[in-house]
Amino acid sequence: MERQRASQQLLRYISSQNRALFARQPSLPREPRSNYNPGLSQTKGEAASHSLKSHKEFYQTLQPLLSCYMLQIQIQSNQAPKFFNLNGITAFQRRSFGSAAMNNQRNPSYSILDSNDIDYFKNILGDKNVVQDEDRLSVANVDWMRKYKGSSQLLLLPRNTDEVSKILSYCNTKHLAVVPQGGNTGLVGGSVPVYDEVIISLASMDKIISFDKVNGILTCEAGCILENLNSFLANEGFIMPLDLGAKGSCQIGGNVSTNAGGLRFIRYGSLHGNTLGLEVVLANGTVLNMLGTLRKDNTGYDLKHLFIGSEGSLGIVTKVSILTPAKLLSTNLAFLACQDYLSCQKLLLEAKKGLGEILSAFEFMDSHSIDMVLAHLEGIRNPLPLSLSKFYVLIETTGSDESHDKAKLDAFLLRSMEDGLVSDGVIAQDINQESMFWRIREGISEATVKAGPVYKYDLSLPVEKLYDIVEEMRLRLGEMAKVVGYGHLGDGNLHLNISATEYSDNIIAKIEPFVYEWTSMHRGSISAEHGLGLMKANKIHYSKTSETVQLMASIKKLLDPNCILNPYKVLPQSVLN
Amino acid sequence: MERQRASQQLLRYISSQNRALFARQPSLPREPRSNYNPGLSQTKGEAASHSLKSHKEFYQTLQPLLSCYMLQIQIQSNQAPKFFNLNGITAFQRRSFGSAAMNNQRNPSYSILDSNDIDYFKNILGDKNVVQDEDRLSVANVDWMRKYKGSSQLLLLPRNTDEVSKILSYCNTKHLAVVPQGGNTGLVGGSVPVYDEVIISLASMDKIISFDKVNGILTCEAGCILENLNSFLANEGFIMPLDLGAKGSCQIGGNVSTNAGGLRFIRYGSLHGNTLGLEVVLANGTVLNMLGTLRKDNTGYDLKHLFIGSEGSLGIVTKVSILTPAKLLSTNLAFLACQDYLSCQKLLLEAKKGLGEILSAFEFMDSHSIDMVLAHLEGIRNPLPLSLSKFYVLIETTGSDESHDKAKLDAFLLRSMEDGLVSDGVIAQDINQESMFWRIREGISEATVKAGPVYKYDLSLPVEKLYDIVEEMRLRLGEMAKVVGYGHLGDGNLHLNISATEYSDNIIAKIEPFVYEWTSMHRGSISAEHGLGLMKANKIHYSKTSETVQLMASIKKLLDPNCILNPYKVLPQSVLN
Repeated sequence: MERQRASQQLLRYISSQNRALFARQPSLPREPRSNYNPGLSQTKGEAASHSLKSHKEFYQTLQPLLSCYMLQIQIQSNQAPKFFNLNGITAFQRRSFGSAAMNNQRNPSYSILDSNDIDYFKNILGDKNVVQDEDRLSVANVDWMRKYKGSSQLLLLPRNTDEVSKILSYCNTKHLAVVPQGGNTGLVGGSVPVYDEVIISLASMDKIISFDKVNGILTCEAGCILENLNSFLANEGFIMPLDLGAKGSCQIGGNVSTNAGGLRFIRYGSLHGNTLGLEVVLANGTVLNMLGTLRKDNTGYDLKHLFIGSEGSLGIVTKVSILTPAKLLSTNLAFLACQDYLSCQKLLLEAKKGLGEILSAFEFMDSHSIDMVLAHLEGIRNPLPLSLSKFYVLIETTGSDESHDKAKLDAFLLRSMEDGLVSDGVIAQDINQESMFWRIREGISEATVKAGPVYKYDLSLPVEKLYDIVEEMRLRLGEMAKVVGYGHLGDGNLHLNISATEYSDNIIAKIEPFVYEWTSMHRGSISAEHGLGLMKANKIHYSKTSETVQLMASIKKLLDPNCILNPYKVLPQSVLN
Repeated sequence: MERQRASQQLLRYISSQNRALFARQPSLPREPRSNYNPGLSQTKGEAASHSLKSHKEFYQTLQPLLSCYMLQIQIQSNQAPKFFNLNGITAFQRRSFGSAAMNNQRNPSYSILDSNDIDYFKNILGDKNVVQDEDRLSVANVDWMRKYKGSSQLLLLPRNTDEVSKILSYCNTKHLAVVPQGGNTGLVGGSVPVYDEVIISLASMDKIISFDKVNGILTCEAGCILENLNSFLANEGFIMPLDLGAKGSCQIGGNVSTNAGGLRFIRYGSLHGNTLGLEVVLANGTVLNMLGTLRKDNTGYDLKHLFIGSEGSLGIVTKVSILTPAKLLSTNLAFLACQDYLSCQKLLLEAKKGLGEILSAFEFMDSHSIDMVLAHLEGIRNPLPLSLSKFYVLIETTGSDESHDKAKLDAFLLRSMEDGLVSDGVIAQDINQESMFWRIREGISEATVKAGPVYKYDLSLPVEKLYDIVEEMRLRLGEMAKVVGYGHLGDGNLHLNISATEYSDNIIAKIEPFVYEWTSMHRGSISAEHGLGLMKANKIHYSKTSETVQLMASIKKLLDPNCILNPYKVLPQSVLN
């Protein structure tokens, strides 16, 4: 009885905290839950264009971050790149990203673009979709973190599958290497050229083809932006089964090609489960129509899975059909403080039991993550300013009955506070407060980039081991860098960000290969959801056996014998020779 | 107000119906929800052994069903099969199953087993795991429907991955064809030899390797029986993410290899989403260790998906790790009558909205299905004997809070009755009544086999078209056969069963290729969850484009260049030559 009274007091405490806190902080304007836009936006018919106004302004912003970049590289339209520059990039990448980057030279078996090639592309795509403009190329050559930079002299904007097919067929015959580019929001250098690869942007292929309301099946072109798809579906009473910080720029084709995870994974699972069909163009231009819209189809090998997560190295995804869940009407979001990591773990177990079928997100952040956001993003306040906790957890529920969901969440929170798992907490009272809470979680990655040079790792680990690597890294690096740990605890996915004042071999040597060896020793994955890209192509053996990597290489050679698709990435060059 | 009163009366009607009905029918004994066992049971260390006592008794049972089978085939230990017999089988299969079966002859590139081979296998497996006993071979040579029959003279029972690897390495070198066999519960002739292939049974590999309670991840050997895994997990507070009628015999390795669907698909999705890792032995004996236990792992191509649903034709699955959902405490099961198919469809939409996150099964049966069960299975009564409805629907909810779930279900049923979608219904009051309701649904397939010769089709179709094919088929066949339609409506999966008094070319000609053409025309799949096996290998082009089939063939040749794994199945022979 005494215990029950205490719990009720705690719950009241939560509510009064809520009111008090949110009286002090003005509501955010009504807007999509995330403001995070990695600096690139894509609209119909345009290539990736930086949100800053001009090329000059772009480079002014870029300069401080890229002090050691050889920005003076001469990219001259219609001319072969000068290799001293290319080698310069390589040297820089080696220095800045240590073993994370490449140990390759440009593969001399690839042709160098000439004016006949340009003429051919203009003939099939029309002049305006064959982009040689330096400003536009500069943007498409750099990833959003501004870490990886290529020197492509050509950006192509196909408008349909047939054009993609013609481009690839030509490039394959001519041995011209290509890089497919979606929203260019990746974190491992997978979506930008390494040298002079032709960039094939899917941005102009952004049509919704059909939506089956009875079964919740959406079919669309690969260039559709995730947030636009979600907005379209919201009007139909559905949602996309995935959600991620980059939603405002990333494209569904890129999501599929990188097997993007994100915030709804704990509830709706992976794209291997939700993707019902794909249309893919192979390296030789063959169009593989696997665009089924059925939930079940066991007729032969399910080849679409080869292309989900292969980062554009086996084919270019041109159309997607995807199962979308019904939009449930009740959503709750709690921002909670935990004193230690063990409490976060126990809270996860309790949430799985107590919230069961309505649990839709379980995100965690350490106090260093929150500090980073408060210091570098504008308009953010800590919802729990009076708490001094080491850890924070964001729990979302989504269900069909508001009163049932609230009852479940209240009971869960009461128990968690009684059991000492949660030391403090607030529940969002409206959509603006929800946006605010999500902005904190989704803003961490952006805040670390704004803070300066950052080394990003994306690990899958058994939940009980997940935070140990953060603490070990902190010990190893001491005053050299700030170590920030956050991620999708419900999926065992840690984002380990190391924020420093410079990119240096010294720091890299402290981090790598330690981080990979540690992860491998604990049977984790060195890439949970970001992919391998350029950054980790040579690190695959930390997570995969040599027999498996050999088979991957055989499949790559079968599907793309000239290796024109997204070269130097995903697999080590050594297994492809 | 009037409307509300009427609804309350209806709800009372449901409850009183319940009491009245279940007073009249004694409860079933407490037992697993399904009694359906396809006649084969497997226990540790034993090969598939028919539940009947002896070989003779087995054949006595078989005889009436197989009047046209050439049972006199001489299977002589250690001797090559006599080809007139093999050809006899082929001729029979052609006649009985029409285009459904094969148009192949035994591939002469495969070697014929000799005494040296037997010696080798005895050397690595021990005498008792090299089975040449006629009785045991007879059982393993026939599928559970007793439709497909091979003439293998050798059944091997490896106890671990290394033994599987040695067997395959040897068979590959010697060009000996093999058929991997799990619970042998398939419906398309995929798990039995076509000619004299060596049978590799996984029945002795049935150990649970680990269970991670924090993350719900089970790792086990491929020969574990689904129901045993579910029982093991129940004690830990979890369930398997799939459930099917054959659970008492089917093995998890077979489930994965055939991408089994079943009853929980609507809630937990496919094995492509739930399988976290696999260990697979390739044709040349290479062990591919992809046995990850992580929810997220984007390091290279996710090759495990190649083996999920490839019916043992690319490799033999030896270990599986799988994500298992928490066992939620509240389950409700409603058996409802609908007057027409349109009402079933509307009810599905309403269930998705109103039951949302707690909906865990939505099965439908036409009245012909119910009649079949009542006529051929013992101890079954119609829970709605006073209703004369054309359709019945089974709706299951699973959630974490009993009162919330009941409230949602009651409200949903009230609305559905008010709207006229449901004409009558009962809710199971205890686990025995639940078993009874499930027994009806799960018993349909068994009942059709007991009724006599049956032609089974497993189609994916857009929900709105799904029942049209049943009615068209009824018109086509008239008095020649009974046409029964049931299945997983929530997943757009129809089981079309055609029950006749004989297997005849006449009937086949009425059914095929019409059923495939109709399905293809409506963009359906000719195999939703059963696979292609032997029955539909040559029909793949009804559901897949020629480019896709060509790529499947290339991958088959890459992984199994001598084509020793499960020959004549999945893909047409023509694309492998």
